[in-house]
Amino acid sequence: MLAIGIDLGGTNIKGALVDDQGHLLSKTEVPTLAREGPEAVIKRIAGLILELAYNHDEPISGIGIGVPGQPDTVTGAVLYAPNLKWERVPVGPMLNREFNYPVYLDNDANTAALAEYRFGAGVGARNLAAVTIGTGIGAGLILEGRLFRGSNWSAGELGHTVVLPGGPLCSCGKNGCLETLTAAPALVRMIQEKINCGEQTSLTGYTSFEARDIFVEALRGDRAAAEIINKMIYYLGIGLGNLVNLLNLDCIIIGGGVARAGEVLFKPLREEILKTALPVPAEIVKVIPASLGNDAGSVGAAALVFEKC
Amino acid sequence: MLAIGIDLGGTNIKGALVDDQGHLLSKTEVPTLAREGPEAVIKRIAGLILELAYNHDEPISGIGIGVPGQPDTVTGAVLYAPNLKWERVPVGPMLNREFNYPVYLDNDANTAALAEYRFGAGVGARNLAAVTIGTGIGAGLILEGRLFRGSNWSAGELGHTVVLPGGPLCSCGKNGCLETLTAAPALVRMIQEKINCGEQTSLTGYTSFEARDIFVEALRGDRAAAEIINKMIYYLGIGLGNLVNLLNLDCIIIGGGVARAGEVLFKPLREEILKTALPVPAEIVKVIPASLGNDAGSVGAAALVFEKC
Repeated sequence: MLAIGIDLGGTNIKGALVDDQGHLLSKTEVPTLAREGPEAVIKRIAGLILELAYNHDEPISGIGIGVPGQPDTVTGAVLYAPNLKWERVPVGPMLNREFNYPVYLDNDANTAALAEYRFGAGVGARNLAAVTIGTGIGAGLILEGRLFRGSNWSAGELGHTVVLPGGPLCSCGKNGCLETLTAAPALVRMIQEKINCGEQTSLTGYTSFEARDIFVEALRGDRAAAEIINKMIYYLGIGLGNLVNLLNLDCIIIGGGVARAGEVLFKPLREEILKTALPVPAEIVKVIPASLGNDAGSVGAAALVFEKC
Repeated sequence: MLAIGIDLGGTNIKGALVDDQGHLLSKTEVPTLAREGPEAVIKRIAGLILELAYNHDEPISGIGIGVPGQPDTVTGAVLYAPNLKWERVPVGPMLNREFNYPVYLDNDANTAALAEYRFGAGVGARNLAAVTIGTGIGAGLILEGRLFRGSNWSAGELGHTVVLPGGPLCSCGKNGCLETLTAAPALVRMIQEKINCGEQTSLTGYTSFEARDIFVEALRGDRAAAEIINKMIYYLGIGLGNLVNLLNLDCIIIGGGVARAGEVLFKPLREEILKTALPVPAEIVKVIPASLGNDAGSVGAAALVFEKC
């Protein structure tokens, strides 16, 4: 069985022709150029789909699309996608003007979870969370072997669970959400605060820096950077430990830019999670890196089609 | 269809003959006397079952048992139940020495959730949490219309999610678990602290008091009591708001002694939850009291049987 998976990102649209074993038969990519409006973006998606479809003779079972926002999985509309400045864009119906493939939408945290569950680090698990740590923190949940979307498709907002009442202000308007203490911009904000206070750190010399630089400097022995990484791991341990206590998962799969730090992150993070997790669920949960990398988005989007078949 | 539901508590064992519409056809109760050991308790359960079964001619589809601890739902053993001082007691096999009805076990938070879902406040919901606030805080989760037990039957430990890092010490060994700030003993501890510090409260005059007295005094205008209730509602709002953001539920059903406070609790609690819940999941979630009262345990235990049929 073949499907086309589209990973609609704020910067690029990735497309891939994927078989039901998760193999990429071909892939392609174009810039999103969201500023040109939904019609133009949808035309570019249609172009990708036709390009991928024309290169193969076998029938294609459908199109899956992962979107950076909240879809209505029934009507195929994107309800909102802040990065694209979209509100109520009927992506599915618009694409169906161009061709007759069935179109399935879901948010990109869910498609990432589905990709890891079917073809990646989560193969064999029955209950898992795929957590992406980047600009924000999102999670896709697979429960009893099925994508769990919640009652109006918004389950998995791990980044907006409060772990420090009265903590830093979040983009959502609350204080102390997990992502204000652990996502990439939080790390950058924390080191900036230290620099502003005159604390000594090798990052003072950088003209600009990213979360990854803080990991690198912490590894090189920079004390201020190490403090921030420790703080991040402390709160992430609480947020993920809470998830373990609530959902008693087989595994937590961590992806996104920050997760590329590897065992420097995972080893202490596992220890912190075990401080919050109760003994019984702690006994079985594995905390592991995502394994599908850059293609997880389009593979997971294609998996939306396999899930329906 | 008929089933016998057994609610095995630390103090009493309640049994009921229940039909598949949730009606109690007869019920009975004996003291647990856990100190006499598992064999004696199981004999008393067997007695209840035979008493309930002999009074009716229609066939009984099975026995459901709600236990205050962690069962292995596959082998029918209770892995541990601290209140009963039980470890690895093969309840199902032991009962099957006495008769041939199939025996299904689950923990009492799960049977309460099942009761409310099938016959109580949760009828019509697809995703719900039934939260019991008493000596501790437990939750049973119904997700996509099925009891969600997690990977080794320990999902729903809402009381042990951390909402205040570094907060009060919990019986589990962690600090700042939700139940250290919101369960009945936490309220009693907090007023005791205020009394010890010489703060003025009408509760100083009580020789002993329970959580309910703190609610009553708060309502009567006692400032110290009101502060404690407000603090409880604040943290409960965070814990339940986090649950809403993670699981995007149709409803949260609250039961247990503390929930009997009624709208004095529910009205401000709903407001607090909305401060933590994101707008999309907040739009649909209802926060409502449990509706089945004292019989929820045995009705939910019987529902374990209907769930299998």
